[in-house]
Amino acid sequence: MTALASRILRGDLRAASRLIRDVDDGRASAVPELQALFPHTGRATVLGITGAPGAGKSSLVDLLVTHYRALGKTIGVVAVDPTSPFSGGALLGDRIRMQGHASDEGVFIRSLATRGNLGGLSRAAADAVRVMDAMGKDLVIVETVGVGQDEIDIAGLAHCVVVVVVPGMGDDIQAIKAGILEVADIFDVNKADREGADRTVRDLRAMLELRHAANDRLPVDPKPQWEPPIVKTVAVGGKGTTGVSDLTQAIERQLAFLDSSGGRAVREAHRSRTEFLAILRERLLASALRRLEHEKGRLDDVAGRIARHEVDPWSIADELARGIAT
Amino acid sequence: MTALASRILRGDLRAASRLIRDVDDGRASAVPELQALFPHTGRATVLGITGAPGAGKSSLVDLLVTHYRALGKTIGVVAVDPTSPFSGGALLGDRIRMQGHASDEGVFIRSLATRGNLGGLSRAAADAVRVMDAMGKDLVIVETVGVGQDEIDIAGLAHCVVVVVVPGMGDDIQAIKAGILEVADIFDVNKADREGADRTVRDLRAMLELRHAANDRLPVDPKPQWEPPIVKTVAVGGKGTTGVSDLTQAIERQLAFLDSSGGRAVREAHRSRTEFLAILRERLLASALRRLEHEKGRLDDVAGRIARHEVDPWSIADELARGIAT
Repeated sequence: MTALASRILRGDLRAASRLIRDVDDGRASAVPELQALFPHTGRATVLGITGAPGAGKSSLVDLLVTHYRALGKTIGVVAVDPTSPFSGGALLGDRIRMQGHASDEGVFIRSLATRGNLGGLSRAAADAVRVMDAMGKDLVIVETVGVGQDEIDIAGLAHCVVVVVVPGMGDDIQAIKAGILEVADIFDVNKADREGADRTVRDLRAMLELRHAANDRLPVDPKPQWEPPIVKTVAVGGKGTTGVSDLTQAIERQLAFLDSSGGRAVREAHRSRTEFLAILRERLLASALRRLEHEKGRLDDVAGRIARHEVDPWSIADELARGIAT
Repeated sequence: MTALASRILRGDLRAASRLIRDVDDGRASAVPELQALFPHTGRATVLGITGAPGAGKSSLVDLLVTHYRALGKTIGVVAVDPTSPFSGGALLGDRIRMQGHASDEGVFIRSLATRGNLGGLSRAAADAVRVMDAMGKDLVIVETVGVGQDEIDIAGLAHCVVVVVVPGMGDDIQAIKAGILEVADIFDVNKADREGADRTVRDLRAMLELRHAANDRLPVDPKPQWEPPIVKTVAVGGKGTTGVSDLTQAIERQLAFLDSSGGRAVREAHRSRTEFLAILRERLLASALRRLEHEKGRLDDVAGRIARHEVDPWSIADELARGIAT
């Protein structure tokens, strides 16, 4: 039943790859394996790297892997690519760039492709992180493209979230959705040799101060708050790099703060809550749809009746939900 | 019980505003009102306008409102702003720009602010569209900012989806997430007087051809397919406009195609399916959480036990889902 799990705990890379693929495909067979791994997880530190396409995230991840490998840490990378047949090609270059670590046994890199509705992507990312955690990786880096709800949910997995911004991408600051700002632990202005880098730093600082002002109106939180630092890097595949040690120092400071402030436990609880709710939603829906088909006919027929306004969606949903009411 | 609904059906704008606010706030009291409106909906044509911040969507919406008002149509606009205290200011300018129509009784404009997890925004947008539909609006325009899953879901509400792109926004084409490409009925290259507009058109065309090539490998669909046209506009608040008639003609052609091909019924059924599943998920979760609190303690305590790895999330979710198994 949990053949993959026991092989993964023994360090079998093929079993780990297989389970991550199953998770990405949304296979039900992955669940007992994940359940078997569950007691062996919770040890890895999870680092999130997010930002718009073209921000140089993969180059940064590459440099971070090199940095942490030199410190003797084992590393997993979960690259989240909401890809499609026609955008796949453009993003593939980044994946290939990271293959410099392909021959290093201490580095395990996997991409996810899931583009499910309602959190399928963030669920798959959470499970892939769990597999790498169970493998015993010290650090798991989750790289996400973009700024949607999925990315915000995925950021919720991480102990430290680095938001990568580049100067001169149009109304770039405005393009950072509020949700991403709120999950950022560190801002990295990458490609900082470009014109406008200082303006981007100033804009970010101004935005953080505005947030401060907004928070000041809320009831006072007695705990010390983390102030997201803004670091500048130049990290573009093979073109020479600067500032990466500023970034890694910022990460170390943030993780130390998280430990000392008790924030790590708070994040773990929040992450568990989010994940549990996502699993619960999925299980409930699967059960309810089985009951729907049994009692009211195929989902498509029910949808057709709703589309023709013969029944309203709330009434049917209520009947099905009544089954689990206390 | 459904006092708002009967007032809305009599054309009461304050009742409509109130119900949309209730929907946006996620109030349970909105549901019976929506149920009462349900038989009176399904007549409006829904037009989706989406794209990155700064693409000039609000200016386009403004021009489309002027165009359709001149044809005697009544119009609703649902402006979806995933805003926060500190980004609110930047986006507010667009809202104000549209207030040129504020004194026109045939135009009803409302903004949504919901930033819920897992589809709260798209649910609120669907319900706001429904209210405007019940009010008897001929056309409801839904304007969304960005390219996340919420926006893709909201696009699913529309009979025609216009994706607005601007030249020269960095790796702009790559920045259009695959999901948005797949829901686009029309591409509008706005600010087409900017350098790089022709390149953007060429890139979009190349991408559509790639999609074609990918689709050709799928089993043949005997129905004629809509080919998303690419139009160019210059529509920036108050700076003079060109190309808007190209856009409105493209919209009319697409809507005519939708009717003649039977696609409208397909979209309605798909929209009903998506909406029903979203409502079902929400109802099931609410019921299950009540049962959870009853049997296992507060959600936060359960999350804490999961975070400490005392229980795994799948086991608890399964127990709760078993209540509705057939």
